[in-house]
Amino acid sequence: MDFKGQDILSTEQFSKEDILRICDVARTFEAISEKRQTSELLKGNVMASLFYEPSTRTRFSFETAMKRLGGQTITAVGQDYSSLAKGESLWDTAKMVEAYADVIVVRHPTEGSAAEMARGANVPVLNGGDGPGQHPTQALLDMYTLMKEKGKIDGLTIMMSGDLKYGRTVHSLCMLLRHFDVKIIFSSPEELKMPTNYLDDLRGRGVAFEEVLTLEEGLKKSDVVYATRVQGERFEDKEQYERLKLAFVLSRDLLEKNHSGITVMHPLPRVGEIAVDVDGLPGAAYFRQAANGVQVRMALLALVLGKV
Amino acid sequence: MDFKGQDILSTEQFSKEDILRICDVARTFEAISEKRQTSELLKGNVMASLFYEPSTRTRFSFETAMKRLGGQTITAVGQDYSSLAKGESLWDTAKMVEAYADVIVVRHPTEGSAAEMARGANVPVLNGGDGPGQHPTQALLDMYTLMKEKGKIDGLTIMMSGDLKYGRTVHSLCMLLRHFDVKIIFSSPEELKMPTNYLDDLRGRGVAFEEVLTLEEGLKKSDVVYATRVQGERFEDKEQYERLKLAFVLSRDLLEKNHSGITVMHPLPRVGEIAVDVDGLPGAAYFRQAANGVQVRMALLALVLGKV
Amino acid sequence: MDFKGQDILSTEQFSKEDILRICDVARTFEAISEKRQTSELLKGNVMASLFYEPSTRTRFSFETAMKRLGGQTITAVGQDYSSLAKGESLWDTAKMVEAYADVIVVRHPTEGSAAEMARGANVPVLNGGDGPGQHPTQALLDMYTLMKEKGKIDGLTIMMSGDLKYGRTVHSLCMLLRHFDVKIIFSSPEELKMPTNYLDDLRGRGVAFEEVLTLEEGLKKSDVVYATRVQGERFEDKEQYERLKLAFVLSRDLLEKNHSGITVMHPLPRVGEIAVDVDGLPGAAYFRQAANGVQVRMALLALVLGKV
Repeated sequence: MDFKGQDILSTEQFSKEDILRICDVARTFEAISEKRQTSELLKGNVMASLFYEPSTRTRFSFETAMKRLGGQTITAVGQDYSSLAKGESLWDTAKMVEAYADVIVVRHPTEGSAAEMARGANVPVLNGGDGPGQHPTQALLDMYTLMKEKGKIDGLTIMMSGDLKYGRTVHSLCMLLRHFDVKIIFSSPEELKMPTNYLDDLRGRGVAFEEVLTLEEGLKKSDVVYATRVQGERFEDKEQYERLKLAFVLSRDLLEKNHSGITVMHPLPRVGEIAVDVDGLPGAAYFRQAANGVQVRMALLALVLGKV
Repeated sequence: MDFKGQDILSTEQFSKEDILRICDVARTFEAISEKRQTSELLKGNVMASLFYEPSTRTRFSFETAMKRLGGQTITAVGQDYSSLAKGESLWDTAKMVEAYADVIVVRHPTEGSAAEMARGANVPVLNGGDGPGQHPTQALLDMYTLMKEKGKIDGLTIMMSGDLKYGRTVHSLCMLLRHFDVKIIFSSPEELKMPTNYLDDLRGRGVAFEEVLTLEEGLKKSDVVYATRVQGERFEDKEQYERLKLAFVLSRDLLEKNHSGITVMHPLPRVGEIAVDVDGLPGAAYFRQAANGVQVRMALLALVLGKV
Repeated sequence: MDFKGQDILSTEQFSKEDILRICDVARTFEAISEKRQTSELLKGNVMASLFYEPSTRTRFSFETAMKRLGGQTITAVGQDYSSLAKGESLWDTAKMVEAYADVIVVRHPTEGSAAEMARGANVPVLNGGDGPGQHPTQALLDMYTLMKEKGKIDGLTIMMSGDLKYGRTVHSLCMLLRHFDVKIIFSSPEELKMPTNYLDDLRGRGVAFEEVLTLEEGLKKSDVVYATRVQGERFEDKEQYERLKLAFVLSRDLLEKNHSGITVMHPLPRVGEIAVDVDGLPGAAYFRQAANGVQVRMALLALVLGKV
């Protein structure tokens, strides 16, 4: 697609070529993101950062991307939204913000809200997460991380573990991986399995996958494990929760016994599902993955603003 | 007046010449505000953006103005005010902030608070709304919008509709319009009529005005309708509120029947008092009006900082 | 010490030479801080401003320092911390933020939290106050203010008044003053005396000090009085609080009777402990002191980023 002026709303809008293009552009920003170069590419541009729901990680990543490319930001977080409290529609808010900004990043707890703002605004809208809906820039940085860590995506076996039922990031990642020649191993408790609509979609696309019920079964066979959090609030039975949570903790001991060189990814924040003693392993990629978010968001901002 | 170093606190401080000067300067910033040019006019300057009460629209408009002119901002919104919570006076806060910023924008729920800060600070203070008090930059952007939409102000018939009793923006706008040769038509429910002190002031200045009780009576005779919100919290009788609110809704049907080419303004946010089907009419000026806020605030910042 | 790459966590880390070096560098930024010059020294650098606990004064001072030196900031205040709410460790947060920023400023209610972030991040961390712990940049700006106001530190007699038991700023200031040839007079109610561990430390270092129970006793003998707030929440007996609070108010009358030329400092915000009629005295240095915070923070940022 021609990125200039485009909204980034959903992982479903990207072809394989689009994904590769974004990763290529992201790579050109590596030295800037890693603080070895400065840039004025987006000088004179203003990004509106609308976080109706706080997410310091996503917000900082976007704002850093904009600022390291020489651009400016205007920011509103959480309770600042006086006009929405007064009953203003997202469409009207978008019409207002388009007058101020060259590009809008929005995070909102309601599915479809980023698309609604995109209908109102005639500047590009980037979805920074819309509740149970999409978080496309996270999925793109995950793809970019796979490419940087492993040198390629085709041919990889990727294991996803933890809460696959409610985990937005693994759903979005599947929507991008289905364009590639990969094998996916889903490892989760019975109660938190990947929803069948995603499995059907993968099957329809000819993507090989397998479901397993323990970490051990998948680790040996995988090049990468993408871990997610098992959230307590999903369980009525707290004992069951504690048992399942423990069963899906990646520890150094477990990794060294099963596949010591495996690449470990996580969307962060983690809360115990990767033990801190894993951090020292060469394959522990989750902090590098977070850092990659800046490069990928630089790429998206530069692309939709027509600067590359 | 000589704008350099001046506080912008109240609509009452402006002469006709001042208003025209601000509009003239605002026009010179049109291309920058519309993102067709960049500027470094305020490079090296810092604006403090103190929003004790959130107002994303006013804050974004000021911050965008500052940033598109190459300046910087420091921002505090709502609950950030730890030192006030500790009992610090506005005067002391102003003395502190003057050490950091070249210009201060303040929004505060208490009438007179901007003036109090202006007494403390020896850098210019711009009133971004002080509760039931003044919102002079809104009134100035309304004047600028009239001038841009209609090419002039003298000779216009301007209708104000909705809640004229509590509507701060229509009060402030009257304080500026009284310097011009205009006719004003006030259209409101009996319960929400323009306060007599404002009517007396207009009468004293020789400004022609008329009061009507329905929208229809005024629309045919007016060049512009400036609509405001009828707020539910003003009414004890909720049935009466619903009836009155509906009677003051500008719909496409109503406009086309009475005056299809009329210019429609609104301070926004709207909550139903202008139907969305009005948006497509050429005279629907309210989103352009919001965008004009950036140009007018650019003009005010540049003027008080002595840069034009 | 070699400041480049260094964390600024505690007053205990500074030698006399370090303190003098910081003051020397701060002085070179005076014209920039006072808005008579602009700078691009930190252009291309990003400071993360993490205020888990709001403190507009400290935050504005750091952000102004960064921006007037041409740098950029990313900011999170109070309730923005969604990932911490989700249970993320400070160590993980630090690893994340190090990917975005060149330097981190953190204020947090828990003692030791800045040090914990410093362990995680491999960019410099500056402690902007960690609860009952340290506030080293405040103490450094206090030293700088003494030097600017009095031309030197050696030889001064400095009185500290008010709540010396819980007052973090006077504790931190003592930790820096002990490197100099000064005399300290502690003036507080019996209930709020300087803790003995600080007195023991001063005694061990050979710093002369004296404890008095009224303001009058100390004012005549001192070159400087550093006042602090007596906080109501420290007292069960509210009558006793009111009596003590009044006994430690610096009024113009009291100063003129006892030592009219004395230099008056206060970390601000004040809540009555310095009467407003003191503001007009030439020795009233507290607003200048607050302004000095920008120069000192400019110096610290430039030093740890290796730019001087």
